[in-house]
Amino acid sequence: MKVRSVALALVHHPIIDRRGDLVATAVTNLDIHDLARTARTYGVSRFYLVTPLEEQQRLVQRIIEHWREGYGANYNPHRAEAFRLVMTVASLEDAMLDWQGETGRPLRPILTGAARTDGISCRQCAGLLAEHDLLLVFGTGWGLAPELFERGWTVLEPVVGAGDYNHLPVRAAVAIILDRLLGRPVQ
Amino acid sequence: MKVRSVALALVHHPIIDRRGDLVATAVTNLDIHDLARTARTYGVSRFYLVTPLEEQQRLVQRIIEHWREGYGANYNPHRAEAFRLVMTVASLEDAMLDWQGETGRPLRPILTGAARTDGISCRQCAGLLAEHDLLLVFGTGWGLAPELFERGWTVLEPVVGAGDYNHLPVRAAVAIILDRLLGRPVQ
Repeated sequence: MKVRSVALALVHHPIIDRRGDLVATAVTNLDIHDLARTARTYGVSRFYLVTPLEEQQRLVQRIIEHWREGYGANYNPHRAEAFRLVMTVASLEDAMLDWQGETGRPLRPILTGAARTDGISCRQCAGLLAEHDLLLVFGTGWGLAPELFERGWTVLEPVVGAGDYNHLPVRAAVAIILDRLLGRPVQ
Repeated sequence: MKVRSVALALVHHPIIDRRGDLVATAVTNLDIHDLARTARTYGVSRFYLVTPLEEQQRLVQRIIEHWREGYGANYNPHRAEAFRLVMTVASLEDAMLDWQGETGRPLRPILTGAARTDGISCRQCAGLLAEHDLLLVFGTGWGLAPELFERGWTVLEPVVGAGDYNHLPVRAAVAIILDRLLGRPVQ
């Protein structure tokens, strides 16, 4: 099966907080590192950090440059390689525009959320990947805002472990979903 | 297939650093949170934080108590549930003794390492799990020290993604291996 490209988005707005209020979360250094390394491991083409806050975009840019070109690139060349995937954008729409501009192809968003009950399986998602470039969209805070789920975009079923405890760190959820989708063709 | 129990160990000594020297790494707050939540999601019975440094053990104990009984337990009850799995021990041998004392059964260590070429597959590991309680052992820093691999313990093959880039964060590796071993019985 021919597989198209996969991109990743980590959204910092629009996000809900623990009370369900709409917020913009702060970018964390560790999320960038972990997701960049995991994305690189699974051959992901681009990792979009989504935040409309310009101050946060500048912060991320400084971190990226440190690891991609600065002292960090010498200290840890593998990290530099992972950081080449990272790009800041103000919105998911900007991510899709960037992709279209770079590749000439549309990027189809796939939303994730631990509480969703309307999602397609990883196997179905792998089927989509034969035909489309996919943008796997993950939330921070208490998850992607409801308004994102009102756009008619495809939703992926949540990761279920051994029971009903459903509070995976986003760093773990990204790793598991990339592994289910792109890892181990033969099991 | 009957499945026995799985425990997790995150080792801070003996570990090698980037030069290959033997070190004790510092415990990080985020590793405890991420691994506890991931372990709880997959029904892991115990998460041993392995460090012989007493000052570090006290630090971990304070973090555990904050989330299990203190302010954190009220703020986030799900976190409290995950933290009930966490226990500090000085060595892997102490983890095995603790398990034997608690359950009356031996705990069989399974070592992990990104550079190993002598490992069993996840499928073979799942086979072992039908007969034994398993202790999945993960390193920090640049990985578990060679001396641990000289004890005749079973080794698990590394996680391979889409290519030869092999620098997953331990937080991601734990999530992927638990998912391969304990997640998705039907795929």
